[in-house]
Amino acid sequence: MNFEVVELEGHIIDSNILSKVLDKIISMGGDFEIEKLEVGKTNEDKSYARILVKGKDGEHLDNILREIQQLGAVVSTDDVETKKAPRDKVLPDDFYGTTNLPTYVKIDGVWKEVEDIEMDCVIVIENRNGEKVPVCKRMGLIKEGDEVVVGYKGIRVVPLERSREKDIFGFMQSEVSPEKPLDYYSKMIAEEIKRIKKNNGKIVWVVGTAIAHTRAHKILEKFVRDGYVDALFCGNGFATMDIEYALFGTTLGMDDTCNIVKGGYKSHLVAINEMWKAGGIKEAVKKGILKKGVLYECVKNNVPYVIGGSLRDDGPLPDTITDVMVAQDEMRKHAKNADMCIILATMLHGIATGNILPARVKTVCIDMNPYVVTRLQDRGTHQAVGIVSDPCAFLHLLEKDLYGKE
Amino acid sequence: MNFEVVELEGHIIDSNILSKVLDKIISMGGDFEIEKLEVGKTNEDKSYARILVKGKDGEHLDNILREIQQLGAVVSTDDVETKKAPRDKVLPDDFYGTTNLPTYVKIDGVWKEVEDIEMDCVIVIENRNGEKVPVCKRMGLIKEGDEVVVGYKGIRVVPLERSREKDIFGFMQSEVSPEKPLDYYSKMIAEEIKRIKKNNGKIVWVVGTAIAHTRAHKILEKFVRDGYVDALFCGNGFATMDIEYALFGTTLGMDDTCNIVKGGYKSHLVAINEMWKAGGIKEAVKKGILKKGVLYECVKNNVPYVIGGSLRDDGPLPDTITDVMVAQDEMRKHAKNADMCIILATMLHGIATGNILPARVKTVCIDMNPYVVTRLQDRGTHQAVGIVSDPCAFLHLLEKDLYGKE
Amino acid sequence: MNFEVVELEGHIIDSNILSKVLDKIISMGGDFEIEKLEVGKTNEDKSYARILVKGKDGEHLDNILREIQQLGAVVSTDDVETKKAPRDKVLPDDFYGTTNLPTYVKIDGVWKEVEDIEMDCVIVIENRNGEKVPVCKRMGLIKEGDEVVVGYKGIRVVPLERSREKDIFGFMQSEVSPEKPLDYYSKMIAEEIKRIKKNNGKIVWVVGTAIAHTRAHKILEKFVRDGYVDALFCGNGFATMDIEYALFGTTLGMDDTCNIVKGGYKSHLVAINEMWKAGGIKEAVKKGILKKGVLYECVKNNVPYVIGGSLRDDGPLPDTITDVMVAQDEMRKHAKNADMCIILATMLHGIATGNILPARVKTVCIDMNPYVVTRLQDRGTHQAVGIVSDPCAFLHLLEKDLYGKE
Amino acid sequence: MNFEVVELEGHIIDSNILSKVLDKIISMGGDFEIEKLEVGKTNEDKSYARILVKGKDGEHLDNILREIQQLGAVVSTDDVETKKAPRDKVLPDDFYGTTNLPTYVKIDGVWKEVEDIEMDCVIVIENRNGEKVPVCKRMGLIKEGDEVVVGYKGIRVVPLERSREKDIFGFMQSEVSPEKPLDYYSKMIAEEIKRIKKNNGKIVWVVGTAIAHTRAHKILEKFVRDGYVDALFCGNGFATMDIEYALFGTTLGMDDTCNIVKGGYKSHLVAINEMWKAGGIKEAVKKGILKKGVLYECVKNNVPYVIGGSLRDDGPLPDTITDVMVAQDEMRKHAKNADMCIILATMLHGIATGNILPARVKTVCIDMNPYVVTRLQDRGTHQAVGIVSDPCAFLHLLEKDLYGKE
Repeated sequence: MNFEVVELEGHIIDSNILSKVLDKIISMGGDFEIEKLEVGKTNEDKSYARILVKGKDGEHLDNILREIQQLGAVVSTDDVETKKAPRDKVLPDDFYGTTNLPTYVKIDGVWKEVEDIEMDCVIVIENRNGEKVPVCKRMGLIKEGDEVVVGYKGIRVVPLERSREKDIFGFMQSEVSPEKPLDYYSKMIAEEIKRIKKNNGKIVWVVGTAIAHTRAHKILEKFVRDGYVDALFCGNGFATMDIEYALFGTTLGMDDTCNIVKGGYKSHLVAINEMWKAGGIKEAVKKGILKKGVLYECVKNNVPYVIGGSLRDDGPLPDTITDVMVAQDEMRKHAKNADMCIILATMLHGIATGNILPARVKTVCIDMNPYVVTRLQDRGTHQAVGIVSDPCAFLHLLEKDLYGKE
Repeated sequence: MNFEVVELEGHIIDSNILSKVLDKIISMGGDFEIEKLEVGKTNEDKSYARILVKGKDGEHLDNILREIQQLGAVVSTDDVETKKAPRDKVLPDDFYGTTNLPTYVKIDGVWKEVEDIEMDCVIVIENRNGEKVPVCKRMGLIKEGDEVVVGYKGIRVVPLERSREKDIFGFMQSEVSPEKPLDYYSKMIAEEIKRIKKNNGKIVWVVGTAIAHTRAHKILEKFVRDGYVDALFCGNGFATMDIEYALFGTTLGMDDTCNIVKGGYKSHLVAINEMWKAGGIKEAVKKGILKKGVLYECVKNNVPYVIGGSLRDDGPLPDTITDVMVAQDEMRKHAKNADMCIILATMLHGIATGNILPARVKTVCIDMNPYVVTRLQDRGTHQAVGIVSDPCAFLHLLEKDLYGKE
Repeated sequence: MNFEVVELEGHIIDSNILSKVLDKIISMGGDFEIEKLEVGKTNEDKSYARILVKGKDGEHLDNILREIQQLGAVVSTDDVETKKAPRDKVLPDDFYGTTNLPTYVKIDGVWKEVEDIEMDCVIVIENRNGEKVPVCKRMGLIKEGDEVVVGYKGIRVVPLERSREKDIFGFMQSEVSPEKPLDYYSKMIAEEIKRIKKNNGKIVWVVGTAIAHTRAHKILEKFVRDGYVDALFCGNGFATMDIEYALFGTTLGMDDTCNIVKGGYKSHLVAINEMWKAGGIKEAVKKGILKKGVLYECVKNNVPYVIGGSLRDDGPLPDTITDVMVAQDEMRKHAKNADMCIILATMLHGIATGNILPARVKTVCIDMNPYVVTRLQDRGTHQAVGIVSDPCAFLHLLEKDLYGKE
Repeated sequence: MNFEVVELEGHIIDSNILSKVLDKIISMGGDFEIEKLEVGKTNEDKSYARILVKGKDGEHLDNILREIQQLGAVVSTDDVETKKAPRDKVLPDDFYGTTNLPTYVKIDGVWKEVEDIEMDCVIVIENRNGEKVPVCKRMGLIKEGDEVVVGYKGIRVVPLERSREKDIFGFMQSEVSPEKPLDYYSKMIAEEIKRIKKNNGKIVWVVGTAIAHTRAHKILEKFVRDGYVDALFCGNGFATMDIEYALFGTTLGMDDTCNIVKGGYKSHLVAINEMWKAGGIKEAVKKGILKKGVLYECVKNNVPYVIGGSLRDDGPLPDTITDVMVAQDEMRKHAKNADMCIILATMLHGIATGNILPARVKTVCIDMNPYVVTRLQDRGTHQAVGIVSDPCAFLHLLEKDLYGKE
């Protein structure tokens, strides 16, 4: 059999969903017939489409169905299928790979939403006191015997629809331009931050070394103190510079007036050594060794931080998690509850965070390198505002807009 | 003959001048003997070197001498030699090509400084009421019969020496890094601007379209009004956006909240058309059509502007100088009197300006593209501070530092 | 009146045309009702939509209609309206600004295609021996009394539809990624070049200085000789380097082994001087002074070249057109007959060319700077393949694929 | 006491060593007197300088001495001093931080070269059967009681001198320009590769995902087979793409003709799963599952590979070392014996490798991002050739030059 009927529902026309599905079919070498199309008359009404999808053969059709399913097409309303994982970390061959969009699977005739959805993972049906619960897990956490979702039956991905109202997070999806009214973006982001905090939402910040090296981290310090930061993700480089600055007033040995004052790059190593002497950052705060800085404020204000290790690290600090999968899982704990994520000046940590965020999280990425901004969006991070600007200079604008100075 | 004696004088050791000369000799395949070296004992004392330079043959030696002369080596203290230009715009074969460093030529036994020095031009000895005056001219301005300096005798180039004091303009010469304490740089540049204006110095600003598209041009407006701008260089794109914004509150049809409100890109064309209707920018100001903006402020405050045309221009505006050599010469009038030059977000106009600036002008280049910053420095622009940042966001910092807001 | 009925026809669903129109209406603050939608059942069938567009008031509606018209919506099938240009270079207030898509205007009840369509220009109805002919003109060429198209009645823009077949020029429209199978792209472009030349099509090449500085211009020389180049656009920098290399074996004084052999940057000036001595490039070829190089091959093979001036030029060469609008018009002569355009390593000339190309021209842009590639596509250059790679290295691949070496 | 006498010896003038030392003293706010300067008369002769260095106070002087010591100044010829590490991973306060230049310490009156020198580490004096041996170690490997070198006495750093002969590795040190004769560079690198392999030297290759995504990894496959690769460093991304391509002919689901053929990004996950099923890459080769590709060739030809984990990894593969410090140490084993290192298209792994290479290793870095190239050189990687080009396209040139095809 080389054809199959699929359904689409929602704002499928003005959110481009229908056209993306048809596009994908053609670009994969398939064909289609639109059997039924009911178009919502107005901007509020939903639409419905039933489409006959044709492939060259069964396997070809299968490949097409898997792709368009991820764009929102419902391929089958049968119950979802599972197979047991043959060994720890090994998946059944036909496993279903997730997107970061809200996803439902049909279990015993009922559509249930998958918990902790994240892209490029798999779905496991857990048995919780007799209830079957679909949960998203990364490959490395799969245990032998886990019931892993396979194939494409009984799976429904809900694509994000274009917001009915004007919203910087909605309409900027695909645009990455270095030339935007910075004032306006800064104001909109400040408002979104305030709105989220007013509703007790969570904001994750992800920052790179440039933030400390340019001294913009002083602004971040204030943000932590004032409750705008609910979790901080960074690398060993940023954390060490923040600590070096707190201890010696330098980053990589350079003081605020660009003088290399003390030991140059060695100051970096000394800062790490001080933390080993103290027994870690929290201990250094407790003992009065570390008295300011972003990490100091995190400790003082009970803001969790994850310092993810990387291959190029010196030291590293005792707090740096050198096993990248352990660090990833630590980041996951905070990512899954986030409402907003702000990524500044870091390609590695930014993309790592983008990978594990659910699509519903409003993501702001500010970087001078258009690659970073584009790549984040290419990899499926929806609702992203990408701004190609200097994140360090931008923080000064954001500070002004958050605190209402003019 | 395949050797020649040359002399070097000044802070030739700690300003790297001696090592650059020796480097150049070796890298061109020549050889040397240091005949005499008197080293200044302290940081204040000058040094002196006499070096025997060897080439494989006369031509090879000649090529080496020409190169090291431009690094400050005095090859001969005979009078300078000239030949007559055979035709308009045609140089004698052996013409001397200038650097942008202060240059002296020996005429009738006297060292005279070359007027209006600029890189990649030639030196003409003008007869002014019986006095012989060396003047730097671009090739296209040479007239038949002009006495053009040839060879390398009697020419002395004075390399810039490392400042004896700490100075952002001195020590940053070769570094282009995106990670600098922005606050500090902003403060230093603000101080330099104030210092220069206090001494009635001249500051030339060179700006690209991003400045208007991001609305940072509103800050520049204020700078013009407050006397910080002595000349403005821009292109047809910036000028049109500035005018479009003054007339309609949009740039390329986009308003302050990122809405495309009116005619999109067409608004750009409409703005140009309005200026043609009025008869030019100055007329539009006089007639009350143009009531704000950077160019409006320039007209109101008698600040000269040069709008240099480029191949990609729409329109262009009646004020845009479509002949690039005419525009260049117009820019020269202001460049030669400048004490400082600030280049923001423009590769084409920035490099064009860099090409015609004397080396003594303190040049600040802020651009997100490290290419622009590097290329400006590669092409011989000394005393340049290159900052890889978002010039639009940076203007907000500079505004704060210039006006003392905190 | 604040609503209007518009029509759309063609492959409006899978080419995204319908969704773009609805998107634009909503993003501009308008609203819509879909009155009729007939969807082509299969990939081959055309679709039709009739949409009621609503604005807040007449002016708002007007603005929306102008925008969606450029996306393919036919707003009115009345005859087109014109007004006379009040003065040379001055347009009537309500003029219609063009896209580079095929455009028809209705004159005396008949749809006629606009000649020489190009973006950001206007349409003039010329009277040719009694026949009314719509022609696209740039603003600067408008004469007093010209009949300029105004408003939006009787204008039909034909959006490019997604190719029914797989084609690198079709499906890459919006993607700019540095990571593509270079081999494949090189092969596809080579095949397209061969196909076009087999059908006597025209290929315009636009090149920057890096092509000469890296010596990749030797490959371009061969392409000119072998008939793959129908017109060459470049700047004074590329032309001078090509000539300097032909005369002295150096570019900016650097030989093939990276030695600075003769006069450094001065060699650039000498090359320009040689052309002034000879009286221009063609004369230099005729006199046997210029014996190889890209421009030499152009002269020998009667391939027209346009050397467009820019503000940063030295010299320039006698052949460089210093007035940018004159240069633009010279480029237009070749652009309007082109079937393919290949842009290598040049932002200024590349964008200038992109601006004047009709949308039907297949455009390849290869640049290391993703800005250039993105900006070219943002500015409305459809059917563009953008490859973020080193154009100099890429030419080596293209040479292999064009000549079938393996 | 606020002054100290230091000595410099070697080609200290034309290698810029003297001027760098004087520069550093002034830029740190110190002062100097040159007590003695004997200049080598010719290019072959060595020079000698004795300099009195002055600081504002003892601590200031100390800081200056530490810095200039790293530039080659010998501060004291007393025996080196050590202190015991107080705990595992904790250094004594005054520890000496290394450069990657050859370094000697004086032990019992004898200068001994430090083993395995690497930047930003410390020196430990090991007792090997009664002999005291200085060894370079990273902080994390320090054990309680280790004799760690402190202060600056008895330490001699040997700066690299400018090669007496022309050599691409010598003279390109500080230049990063995108415009170089690619042919020449490719030929020079090919010759260096051949020369090193002829002398049984070792070449380490470091590659990023773009190499596989563009299919340039097929060239690398051949290089492994033909003995040009002695160790391969890469990340989970490259390794997985290489395996995905070997198994399915796709990378991230994209085939050689840019079609998304099978499961899109999911193919990436499937490839990882296959390796888990097989029990790792070597097992997959042994079992005949993995039959081609770069890693296959590594296994077949006994070329060691290190797959260093990163935060953004999917999976990862069973062979990926998820603990970054373990991965670093694994890389160190190969880095310390390398004669050449070629870094292609990877910022993270490239910088990580640059950090651990001794300065004597000839390093080639080819990347489209000038940041990567510049940062590698800024961080002290000497003898680096940085080429801003597309490494994927460049590999095609290198293949041609290595195999002599034309």
